[in-house]
Amino acid sequence: MLRQSSEEVMILAELEATPAKTDALPPRRPRVVILGAGFGGLNAALGLRNAPVDITVVDRRNYHLFQPLLYQVATAGLSPAQIAMPIRRVLASQKNATVLMEKVEGVDTAARTVLTGSRRIPYDYLIIATGARHAYFGHDAWEANAPGLKTIGDATEIRARILTAFEKAEVTDDPALREKLLTFVVVGGGPTGVELAGAIIELARKAIVRDFRNIDSSTARVVLVEADERLLTAFPEKLLQSAKSQLEKLGVEVKLGAAVTECDDNGVALADGQRVASACVLWAAGVMASRAAKWLDVAADRAGRVVVDEHLHVPGREGLYVIGDTASVKGKDDSPVPGVALAAKQMGRYVADLIKARLAGRTAEPFRYADYGNLATIGRKAAVADLGPIQLRGFLAWLLWSFAHLWFLVGFRNRTGVFLDWAWAYATFDRSARLITERRDR
Amino acid sequence: MLRQSSEEVMILAELEATPAKTDALPPRRPRVVILGAGFGGLNAALGLRNAPVDITVVDRRNYHLFQPLLYQVATAGLSPAQIAMPIRRVLASQKNATVLMEKVEGVDTAARTVLTGSRRIPYDYLIIATGARHAYFGHDAWEANAPGLKTIGDATEIRARILTAFEKAEVTDDPALREKLLTFVVVGGGPTGVELAGAIIELARKAIVRDFRNIDSSTARVVLVEADERLLTAFPEKLLQSAKSQLEKLGVEVKLGAAVTECDDNGVALADGQRVASACVLWAAGVMASRAAKWLDVAADRAGRVVVDEHLHVPGREGLYVIGDTASVKGKDDSPVPGVALAAKQMGRYVADLIKARLAGRTAEPFRYADYGNLATIGRKAAVADLGPIQLRGFLAWLLWSFAHLWFLVGFRNRTGVFLDWAWAYATFDRSARLITERRDR
Repeated sequence: MLRQSSEEVMILAELEATPAKTDALPPRRPRVVILGAGFGGLNAALGLRNAPVDITVVDRRNYHLFQPLLYQVATAGLSPAQIAMPIRRVLASQKNATVLMEKVEGVDTAARTVLTGSRRIPYDYLIIATGARHAYFGHDAWEANAPGLKTIGDATEIRARILTAFEKAEVTDDPALREKLLTFVVVGGGPTGVELAGAIIELARKAIVRDFRNIDSSTARVVLVEADERLLTAFPEKLLQSAKSQLEKLGVEVKLGAAVTECDDNGVALADGQRVASACVLWAAGVMASRAAKWLDVAADRAGRVVVDEHLHVPGREGLYVIGDTASVKGKDDSPVPGVALAAKQMGRYVADLIKARLAGRTAEPFRYADYGNLATIGRKAAVADLGPIQLRGFLAWLLWSFAHLWFLVGFRNRTGVFLDWAWAYATFDRSARLITERRDR
Repeated sequence: MLRQSSEEVMILAELEATPAKTDALPPRRPRVVILGAGFGGLNAALGLRNAPVDITVVDRRNYHLFQPLLYQVATAGLSPAQIAMPIRRVLASQKNATVLMEKVEGVDTAARTVLTGSRRIPYDYLIIATGARHAYFGHDAWEANAPGLKTIGDATEIRARILTAFEKAEVTDDPALREKLLTFVVVGGGPTGVELAGAIIELARKAIVRDFRNIDSSTARVVLVEADERLLTAFPEKLLQSAKSQLEKLGVEVKLGAAVTECDDNGVALADGQRVASACVLWAAGVMASRAAKWLDVAADRAGRVVVDEHLHVPGREGLYVIGDTASVKGKDDSPVPGVALAAKQMGRYVADLIKARLAGRTAEPFRYADYGNLATIGRKAAVADLGPIQLRGFLAWLLWSFAHLWFLVGFRNRTGVFLDWAWAYATFDRSARLITERRDR
């Protein structure tokens, strides 16, 4: 198997005959516009650091978010600023990059122009990396009762709902209401659902267990509901079993083959007719790509992702690339490249290198996803890791997960802050960010 | 001058003849209800730790806020969780205390009952410590254009407005709009106004100065507007002059004797007819006590504070005490006790000790405010300190301010976190929490 050892060397320095290289360049520096500063977009910008181009990064938010740890904000373990970095700070010293905080309204591919609320931004190369949102499979009304987890706003909202449920349970004298308040339902058995369920049960049984007088927070139920017959379907069978038993050992009730048929402010109804009364339902059951396919009016797959060719290029649209969770890309054996941070990062670096190669008159080899394995954390000392030949579970997998995430967390400072918080939390079971905050709360 | 050396010894252990001491106690433990878990309420609860009472702390939020550092959240220096602690965590090991997160709707003093949204809470002793809000002197409509700073929600809103102004200035091509976006107006020359103005100019000139391409953030104007002829009126004249010149040295424009006559989305108009165009006006010009006087239907002073007697007792209302920013209390020479954290803390401890004394059949000496001095910070290495005979300014005052605030910050963990952030910010001029977040932003 010819897997490349690092995404850094993934370029393709094959020289070609370039008869009119300088003539082919426009008189000004080529303009590269990047939409979205997640793992894909930010790494595309960083990969073009020394390239003779003018880069404009457009994002509706002012920060890059380390999404793999977002569930820890939602469960009061970390503060938002610990997993988010201002985009312009990351790119402050990169003089060829300009950051604009703007909402993209569309793309005029004929005029090679991005449309925002206030301006038209011309491009020679456009990299779309606008990510994905959670999806409700046609039940958008469920969102009000079952928020998903993609943004910092989502995370602080979920944190407020979880903590408020315990607060209200402490106040009420109604046993039925108390039981409902102390039942948490997580819909979706992928990595995010598993992480959330594990973190909530640990919160209830460890972090806050001594804080209440009228309730015993350790009696809280956390119910993980998955329509499929298996959790974490990306993992091999043996690790799936382990993940399920690790979750159950923590105290999570795992319901497999249980599709949600209704979701309202009383909780959820399942396909088998069962109802689970809950005041706090969280949604981790699916994602839908951003609107890019609509902007471009091109083919999308079932999850709304733009179908790109082997160079991450949109067929028929000169200079237009789509990467990360917004792109539908085939990996080896034609299996789809997963929507994970590392894949987005590799795609961002790949497109940066491809543009550099094109500017130098070279061609690029097709994108190849370097799959280093698959990690999912479940709780304290609980995780599964699939490294191809090596499979880990429990403490070792958790250690690996922790170090891998610290390593990839952007920026030295955030890394130390998160490390200190983790070390503290590990020693004390404490949660540092237990705030129920609201915008302009009074 | 007979000033007491510590608030801890402020009780009055004068024994009296108590003929029927045990008979006077009701068969159950006396119920102490505390409304508000700011510095006053929390210290009242902590002061009753070993008392034979049942304490109920009621707060509409789940956290105690270290308000003296709130301006640092508003200017992206600290994260909310670094200056806020869950109330129930502070009181977790205090078995005689129950915390209820509820909004108080009123007090029935005849029935000795507090009314909340969901229940009636009977009390034998009631301590009202519900603090104060900013006030607009009859211009409540100004609040939308000029938010004040009292809650974490206020702080993250102000942070978003400041950072968004720079982001929009980077995007626009309109010079007049850009100038308006790069002009920040702070209304009110008290400690909060001075802190905000200093922190914003430092943000513009240091923390973010290398991050933009189309604007020079160091050209931002920060205008501090005060209706009085002096800043920081609680300080002696010599320090006032120093505070003004320290602010001006940082780059703040100080306008004294400049009452605001209009405040809209174009900025502010001043009494002399001048207009200052600004997209970000912040309000630090006055406070109004919480609704306690209305709940009790008793006399209030001009700032809405309940007039209490020398024992912080509400005349004619048995067992009812009002403390902190909600109380109008006379200090030595009949001067009012200032609305500062240390005064609230002392009042909380005083009432706790008074209740313990009453339960033991003793009487209590009148409350006496131990005034340790007055500190105001202006910026990096800039502050003023009035310690009575000793007056400091500049670096020494700033050091004293920093250590005093670290010392008083509740909880070991928050202290180290804040200390690390300050050390880092001092070394690098960095701001760690530069996030423009919204509730459930998309």
